Amino acid sequence: MQKLEQIYEGKAKKVFKTDGEDIYLVSYKDDATAFNGEKKGTILGKGAINNRLSNYFMQLLEKEGVKTHFIEEVSATDSYVKKVEIIPLEVIVRNISAGSFAKRYGVEEGIVFAEPTIEFSYKNDELNDPLINDCHIQALALATKAEIETIKAMAFKVNQVLKDFLLNNKIKLVDFKLEFGKTSSGEIILADEISPDTCRFWDSESNQKLDKDRFRRDLGDVEAAYREMLKRIIGAE
Amino acid sequence: MQKLEQIYEGKAKKVFKTDGEDIYLVSYKDDATAFNGEKKGTILGKGAINNRLSNYFMQLLEKEGVKTHFIEEVSATDSYVKKVEIIPLEVIVRNISAGSFAKRYGVEEGIVFAEPTIEFSYKNDELNDPLINDCHIQALALATKAEIETIKAMAFKVNQVLKDFLLNNKIKLVDFKLEFGKTSSGEIILADEISPDTCRFWDSESNQKLDKDRFRRDLGDVEAAYREMLKRIIGAE
Repeated sequence: MQKLEQIYEGKAKKVFKTDGEDIYLVSYKDDATAFNGEKKGTILGKGAINNRLSNYFMQLLEKEGVKTHFIEEVSATDSYVKKVEIIPLEVIVRNISAGSFAKRYGVEEGIVFAEPTIEFSYKNDELNDPLINDCHIQALALATKAEIETIKAMAFKVNQVLKDFLLNNKIKLVDFKLEFGKTSSGEIILADEISPDTCRFWDSESNQKLDKDRFRRDLGDVEAAYREMLKRIIGAE
Repeated sequence: MQKLEQIYEGKAKKVFKTDGEDIYLVSYKDDATAFNGEKKGTILGKGAINNRLSNYFMQLLEKEGVKTHFIEEVSATDSYVKKVEIIPLEVIVRNISAGSFAKRYGVEEGIVFAEPTIEFSYKNDELNDPLINDCHIQALALATKAEIETIKAMAFKVNQVLKDFLLNNKIKLVDFKLEFGKTSSGEIILADEISPDTCRFWDSESNQKLDKDRFRRDLGDVEAAYREMLKRIIGAE
């Protein structure tokens, strides 16, 4: 397959057209941003680690019946994925209070919820990705009621699969952000990435953070945390 | 009945205990605030108008089967209401885009929704009343799933009754904020107030604003708008 022109550059990835039908190439970057781009930096080796971890998780999810955009790993930092039109919603599932949830509602981090929660943000940097509920998603025609239900069911399934898998690897899945896309045939599939950039991973015994919060909060050992995740999940360093 | 000590003073009302069992006295003030208290002012005659309008709407809703806290009008600005424990949620129903919705999602005011929408904010001035969804209301134990469903059904019923009634009086009900409370027996009833302080009312032909937006946005004729609402609804000036 041939890599063609770049069609998108985000905070942590570039996306290219290819000469394959409905196939894109995603290239993961070492660049890191936080707080809607206010904080910028580099996490050495992140691109390769996120590429491998995200592909691993996507394949695991496929085995469990969750349709994803993953096709094939091409290189250390690059993968082929199915072309989709991204639904402009950030889908956040939480098992334990942390981050924006704790701040928004004035509660501590670390509260374990009786049931996982789900929330949507409208993907719009200019508006600072505002929270949005089911009613308003429909009112703004961002997704239909049926699509929202599909997305919720898929997101909770992702949570169940990953939470159990990660706990076997001594990691608590605290929360994570997903994005979904529509294929040319209209099917909703899991897109974007699943990595320490988009999830909160805590060591199940020490609660040590093994994710981008080390960068966001200047906790140090940022690269080591990403490498530790790779080691625990894929067994390589 | 005897008015006893004040138990609460809010932005637009004071609440007093009485010697009646489970009965409070609400006293409406002319004070007006906006933007979470950042803007302060006085709207002459507002207390009396809101007392009369809110009581009128509550009685109308009672007739249509919506349980409310209203008992009896005591004076121009004061009414007896049932004692409730307020559920710490602001319940906002919208028929037309305006205000915080339009700003939050970067859309124009005046978009008529195909279906009314509902949203919840967590009543907490320190946190700036953040938006909150059903999952998170349950996670924070602010209300149960059944209570949320009751509140939603009641709020949509209030919308249907008031929207139709107001349109007969040449007013569009754009959006409004409700609060609900639990009686000592655990029943959920409509509490707080329904007035130009808590609703957006637009003239059905000119779209002229007949509500607190005239104060919030320095549009002038604030008192006249409140008096106009009183005149249209109750027929008195």
